[in-house]
Amino acid sequence: MGKLARRNITVHSEDCSGMMLIDRVTTGINGLDGLLEGGFPRGSMVLLAGSPGSGKTIASAQFLYHGATKCDENGVYVSFAEQKEVFVNNMARFGLDFLELEKKGKFKFLDMATTTEAGISETLNVLIREALSIKAQRLVIDSFSAMALAFDKKIDARVILHAFEKMMRQTGSTTLLLVEIPTGNSELGLGFEEFVADGLILFETIEEKIGIKKRAIIRKMRGTNHNQNYSNIVISDQGISLMPYVT
Amino acid sequence: MGKLARRNITVHSEDCSGMMLIDRVTTGINGLDGLLEGGFPRGSMVLLAGSPGSGKTIASAQFLYHGATKCDENGVYVSFAEQKEVFVNNMARFGLDFLELEKKGKFKFLDMATTTEAGISETLNVLIREALSIKAQRLVIDSFSAMALAFDKKIDARVILHAFEKMMRQTGSTTLLLVEIPTGNSELGLGFEEFVADGLILFETIEEKIGIKKRAIIRKMRGTNHNQNYSNIVISDQGISLMPYVT
Amino acid sequence: MGKLARRNITVHSEDCSGMMLIDRVTTGINGLDGLLEGGFPRGSMVLLAGSPGSGKTIASAQFLYHGATKCDENGVYVSFAEQKEVFVNNMARFGLDFLELEKKGKFKFLDMATTTEAGISETLNVLIREALSIKAQRLVIDSFSAMALAFDKKIDARVILHAFEKMMRQTGSTTLLLVEIPTGNSELGLGFEEFVADGLILFETIEEKIGIKKRAIIRKMRGTNHNQNYSNIVISDQGISLMPYVT
Amino acid sequence: MGKLARRNITVHSEDCSGMMLIDRVTTGINGLDGLLEGGFPRGSMVLLAGSPGSGKTIASAQFLYHGATKCDENGVYVSFAEQKEVFVNNMARFGLDFLELEKKGKFKFLDMATTTEAGISETLNVLIREALSIKAQRLVIDSFSAMALAFDKKIDARVILHAFEKMMRQTGSTTLLLVEIPTGNSELGLGFEEFVADGLILFETIEEKIGIKKRAIIRKMRGTNHNQNYSNIVISDQGISLMPYVT
Amino acid sequence: MGKLARRNITVHSEDCSGMMLIDRVTTGINGLDGLLEGGFPRGSMVLLAGSPGSGKTIASAQFLYHGATKCDENGVYVSFAEQKEVFVNNMARFGLDFLELEKKGKFKFLDMATTTEAGISETLNVLIREALSIKAQRLVIDSFSAMALAFDKKIDARVILHAFEKMMRQTGSTTLLLVEIPTGNSELGLGFEEFVADGLILFETIEEKIGIKKRAIIRKMRGTNHNQNYSNIVISDQGISLMPYVT
Amino acid sequence: MGKLARRNITVHSEDCSGMMLIDRVTTGINGLDGLLEGGFPRGSMVLLAGSPGSGKTIASAQFLYHGATKCDENGVYVSFAEQKEVFVNNMARFGLDFLELEKKGKFKFLDMATTTEAGISETLNVLIREALSIKAQRLVIDSFSAMALAFDKKIDARVILHAFEKMMRQTGSTTLLLVEIPTGNSELGLGFEEFVADGLILFETIEEKIGIKKRAIIRKMRGTNHNQNYSNIVISDQGISLMPYVT
Repeated sequence: MGKLARRNITVHSEDCSGMMLIDRVTTGINGLDGLLEGGFPRGSMVLLAGSPGSGKTIASAQFLYHGATKCDENGVYVSFAEQKEVFVNNMARFGLDFLELEKKGKFKFLDMATTTEAGISETLNVLIREALSIKAQRLVIDSFSAMALAFDKKIDARVILHAFEKMMRQTGSTTLLLVEIPTGNSELGLGFEEFVADGLILFETIEEKIGIKKRAIIRKMRGTNHNQNYSNIVISDQGISLMPYVT
Repeated sequence: MGKLARRNITVHSEDCSGMMLIDRVTTGINGLDGLLEGGFPRGSMVLLAGSPGSGKTIASAQFLYHGATKCDENGVYVSFAEQKEVFVNNMARFGLDFLELEKKGKFKFLDMATTTEAGISETLNVLIREALSIKAQRLVIDSFSAMALAFDKKIDARVILHAFEKMMRQTGSTTLLLVEIPTGNSELGLGFEEFVADGLILFETIEEKIGIKKRAIIRKMRGTNHNQNYSNIVISDQGISLMPYVT
Repeated sequence: MGKLARRNITVHSEDCSGMMLIDRVTTGINGLDGLLEGGFPRGSMVLLAGSPGSGKTIASAQFLYHGATKCDENGVYVSFAEQKEVFVNNMARFGLDFLELEKKGKFKFLDMATTTEAGISETLNVLIREALSIKAQRLVIDSFSAMALAFDKKIDARVILHAFEKMMRQTGSTTLLLVEIPTGNSELGLGFEEFVADGLILFETIEEKIGIKKRAIIRKMRGTNHNQNYSNIVISDQGISLMPYVT
Repeated sequence: MGKLARRNITVHSEDCSGMMLIDRVTTGINGLDGLLEGGFPRGSMVLLAGSPGSGKTIASAQFLYHGATKCDENGVYVSFAEQKEVFVNNMARFGLDFLELEKKGKFKFLDMATTTEAGISETLNVLIREALSIKAQRLVIDSFSAMALAFDKKIDARVILHAFEKMMRQTGSTTLLLVEIPTGNSELGLGFEEFVADGLILFETIEEKIGIKKRAIIRKMRGTNHNQNYSNIVISDQGISLMPYVT
Repeated sequence: MGKLARRNITVHSEDCSGMMLIDRVTTGINGLDGLLEGGFPRGSMVLLAGSPGSGKTIASAQFLYHGATKCDENGVYVSFAEQKEVFVNNMARFGLDFLELEKKGKFKFLDMATTTEAGISETLNVLIREALSIKAQRLVIDSFSAMALAFDKKIDARVILHAFEKMMRQTGSTTLLLVEIPTGNSELGLGFEEFVADGLILFETIEEKIGIKKRAIIRKMRGTNHNQNYSNIVISDQGISLMPYVT
Repeated sequence: MGKLARRNITVHSEDCSGMMLIDRVTTGINGLDGLLEGGFPRGSMVLLAGSPGSGKTIASAQFLYHGATKCDENGVYVSFAEQKEVFVNNMARFGLDFLELEKKGKFKFLDMATTTEAGISETLNVLIREALSIKAQRLVIDSFSAMALAFDKKIDARVILHAFEKMMRQTGSTTLLLVEIPTGNSELGLGFEEFVADGLILFETIEEKIGIKKRAIIRKMRGTNHNQNYSNIVISDQGISLMPYVT
């Protein structure tokens, strides 16, 4: 099945994803699978890009939780932005019990917030080791922006991205890479992540008369005839869902 | 209660905040608690960002005053922009008697305006020492922008922010970090504070036909199903309040 | 009265300013005092920012003249942009006789246009010496932009601003700092003066169908519940006045 | 016939292109030939520029496939962005069987994703060698943006482009060069590719009320009285087609 | 009368300018004097800023010609952009015979187009020498932009402007300094000329439905209650005139 | 006749240009002469600026062809962007037979595409030599943008432009300098060519509802009372023409 290769798309069906020419993994985000012909192509690296507070973290948490509980795919959450306890408690509000998953050996939270430049190789080795130890097939990096900050500018962010790709090739996982769009800015991240990734979903924040509206759109998904329309983002105590867009 | 860890969100209720899964601290800003499911998550670092004169200083002063007088939480105001006397007199106009609090050992004002680059370590040590001496649980930094100015560009602002986080971890306090948006600019601070902070409230200045209107919006607050709409900012001799937005 | 400290706001009234909690100095600009609860807080550093020709110079001249003739507060005009004779003659058109004031020892004009980088320390010492010699309590710097130009970029403009603050602390004067907004630009000065100053008044130039309209707005004034609306700027042979805004 | 020279436009007709003064190659993209007086001038270097997910990859794959199956022109796909298996599988969805072509010696996929700066000369030699080995007359570079990334900034992207031109001169092929326009940006690539290329087709992404619309326009094609209007981009399981534009 | 000092504004009237408190020189541009209370303040440095082809050169030529023929004020035209013959012939079209003036010793054209960086001191000495030799009281620099180009960036343009000011102080002349606004740009020159100059007149190019409209506006003129409205620029074989603005 | 001097405008008429005070050369572009009082001033350097594909190359080719066949003025086409064969073939489509002109010694094509930095002096010498060898009086540089690219940034583009001017002075020719405006950009070239050139014609590309419209406008032409309105650009098999503008 060629799982040793990243982006290895095997031409057969898997249990959790139905019969498709391209092997897909369901996303765990209500309303998204139907926009993607069933889910992300297995082994893809997909960017979730948006301004702070747009729902990226919740979405990626649901992606991991769903994988572990429904698709028998373990997951690793790599964080450069917050500590495990905060993440666990925040997600508990949505009924996602990550401590339970962790006890069952189906989930790992890697706290990278204190990593320095000197530690990048070591960081990645730790990542690979941890991911392999639970045979993770789903990965979240939160966020590429915070990660690039953690290291000094001398180490090109491209080098880091490159190292990540190698790592993913070794593990064969489907990865969500979170990218921040700062307030007052419309450019995405560092400007190059977009064309090396397999997919890109924008979590947009639209200023309306009385407040902020959140909507999502799939800008790119290789190997997929994806939906071209906006979806409303709804965040409730069930987590995040995508609903048909009403203007 | 894990106060040794920053962002330690303990899963129980406290006197001043009611029964919630996430431990919250009431803000002291009239109209804001209701938009935040009761208050800031305890231990959060929240950015208050806005143009000069938008009300950030008054809001952060009320946050500290309320904490000291109503929630038995002492506070420290760290200023890189003005001297204590000016602050005290300005806040006295709103009925906030900080001299009294200071006498009671419930408040400290740290005048950092004269700090130079050479003194950053020393500055932070002073900060920690002072905060611990009154067991402060609320902190205001006014402002991250003025602070970054005080030090030479050689010391990366990120290093400073990082040092602050460590300090907050030691004290376990809830912190408001003020960030300036200069006139004619829509980008916020240095572009990265947003994604390392736990929350972000924008104090916007809108140009209308006859003058300036001030409004606030919560862009991000981790662990909180926050309100998405604008609020009118009203500044009276009672201080600053948020009212429902009327266009 | 604590005049040794800059920004020392003493809590009592003075002859020229009525009974207020915050000690204020009347501005000498017709229509402005009423927008500022009576005047500038004594000891403030206030930015007057605007494009060339927007009326900043006339306004600051009236501030000094009024101080010397009505409030018994001597003043110093520090110019990096023009020579004394030009200033004197231009202001004479508005009935402001600065030569007379100078003879009475109530006014000094410091011509800094020829100052070079090597002379900054000396410049500031001269300034302090001159200001103290007539016990000046009002100061105008015209302009921070021209001043930053006079010195090589190597000497950070922040260093200059810092030196000025120290100087003002020594003299305890209320200061107007003029800042230029170049044509085609909306950003103000160097981007940082705004948040270290106590107040900011914008002198805006609005392009309308048949020509240019000038209007002013108070963006920030610490310790003051300032007016939020635009005012029309009217320049006549009486000088500059602010009138209620008509669109 | 001067095939040794790049951009050698011979003045006679070829089988696959009809009778024209300028020798043209049909594009393989439904609807495009008619907008180009029959096809691309043989030997041209044409930029396909657009945001991620706009259809550039599918279009360039069809260009190669059509050349190999209908015009007896072999082709090489040079990729700096993805691996062969992914490409092959993605294109199989549209009925383009590249494995078959490869077996018949009519197609080669060059995986350059792992090329480093040190290897540029070697890379280009490999390219030339491979292209000549199957006598390729059609070439796709995916993408110039990813390629420029792969090499350190010290090696000017212009040097790379220059090296490519030399290579194309040796092989005499018609080349599509893919250029990425990052999200939130309207500038194309590095700003200079446009005027050294012979042609430029923009694959635009237009934000409409309910979602994204894709349209194409020919901005430049030397030696061709090209169509000036937009075309709708339609992507179906037949691949990509251009249809008359309806707003 | 203090003509040795630049910007020496003597308080008396002169033949050519009527009775005014501020000594003024008539401009020679039809329609402009009335907008300036009679003319430019004697000794001013006035910027004429506009895009290429907006009429600045013709206006400045008329200023010199009028000075020499009507006000007995000789003039020097310093050009960094074109040669004397071209200038002379172009102006002859408008009936301005500069060769005649030159013969009478009332006009000098200084061709600086070939000046290099090494020659700046020498250039300025030549300028001063030539200006004094005919006792010039009117000066045109065409253009500050071309001049800054002629010298390497190492010599700060500010240094050049400074040197010019010294030179003008020595000659006591009224000077027009031409500044170019490049196409697609709204910022004026290098951003600082505006606030060191005494006056600023914008020659604007407005894009309308069928073509280009030219209009002028006085943005700043020290010591003058100048007109605030736009004027239409009309260029005929009489030269350039300002007419009341019709939209 | 002063042909040794660049921009030497002799005050007499020439055969090809009618009776004018300024010596003019007809342009060869249908519809343009009438907008320019008969043609370009002899010896001018005129910028043709526009986005790729806007018609600059065809226009400049017609300028040379017309000069050689109708005005007995030989011409040189200096190209940094394409090879002679491509140029020749492309122009043949419009009925312009440059091979014929070349045989008659009335036209030269200089292929500079392979010139490197080391070769700039040599390049210019070649240019001058070739131009003088056929006594060329018309010159086209295609393009200044591509030329600046060919040389390393260390050699200032200004130095190159300066060298060109010297060369033109030696030959006394009328020159068209092509400048590229990249997609998504409104600034023209490097920002300084405009004010050293004698004329500027913009070839604009306007995005309309259904496609692209091309229009031209004369922004500047020294010594000419040029038309101020837009013209439609029409490209047919007769080449490029300017027609009255219809919106």
